[in-house]
Amino acid sequence: MPLFEKVLYSTDFSPLAELALDYVKKLKEAGEKEVVVVHVVDDLSIELPDGADLLNDKELYKILPEVDQEYVTSLIERLEAVKRILEEEGLSVKIYLKYGNIPKQIVDVAEKEKVKIIVMGAHGKGLLTEILLGSVSTDVIRNAKCPVLIVKNREE
Amino acid sequence: MPLFEKVLYSTDFSPLAELALDYVKKLKEAGEKEVVVVHVVDDLSIELPDGADLLNDKELYKILPEVDQEYVTSLIERLEAVKRILEEEGLSVKIYLKYGNIPKQIVDVAEKEKVKIIVMGAHGKGLLTEILLGSVSTDVIRNAKCPVLIVKNREE
Repeated sequence: MPLFEKVLYSTDFSPLAELALDYVKKLKEAGEKEVVVVHVVDDLSIELPDGADLLNDKELYKILPEVDQEYVTSLIERLEAVKRILEEEGLSVKIYLKYGNIPKQIVDVAEKEKVKIIVMGAHGKGLLTEILLGSVSTDVIRNAKCPVLIVKNREE
Repeated sequence: MPLFEKVLYSTDFSPLAELALDYVKKLKEAGEKEVVVVHVVDDLSIELPDGADLLNDKELYKILPEVDQEYVTSLIERLEAVKRILEEEGLSVKIYLKYGNIPKQIVDVAEKEKVKIIVMGAHGKGLLTEILLGSVSTDVIRNAKCPVLIVKNREE
């Protein structure tokens, strides 16, 4: 199977994730056919089981406080917008909105979907981890079984 | 220019670097044409200027103790073997043997050669940094201006 046939694109909707999205679009020239888009939420006001499916689990949705429901709805809209952008490129796209430990969820989806590579911006969470490269990227690289491609801002 | 037209392949000749080499070979299907192979030495018995060119600087070679001369010669042979492997794939190959800070030298060559991406195994130096993913990979990702692709051992 070609190296880039099925790609996991992890996004936190940051400017660096947008840059990584441009890269994911361009990967079509390298044989990319399918993209699995993943966003992980770890900051809701009630704690959910690690790996909870915020996109499809309607029961889960009902127990969330209203402010979280609105937040989750806005994230789904953003994921669907990314899906449309990639579909316009002729790619087959699947979206995931998961709750839990961010790097763990990304790696879990990568394994479940048997992607060939994970593409992400060099993002982190919080100031300290941003200085230290981004613990999210670091932890994904450490735990992933497939190659990981980190997109950098050339203007940095 | 295609995303993978010119690739920097960083190697420490470890098993993970060999795995990354297989990946670099396969990248030809994604439009790869040129490969810049880089190995950085930081452990000679005399200290040299950061960025010293161990491949082409004949004067430098003369001042090295005999044991280091032999070591450097063996590294050049290994780099040339990698070059042949990639040339057999129909790729255009350039090799670098540099002395100094490993991530800094990798990033410097990447900028000088204007590569489109850096490919490397998730290697580090020493036990502690290996646990912490590999400070070499982390520092390359932090400082590179181009995307960085980290190849992982699937058998891990």
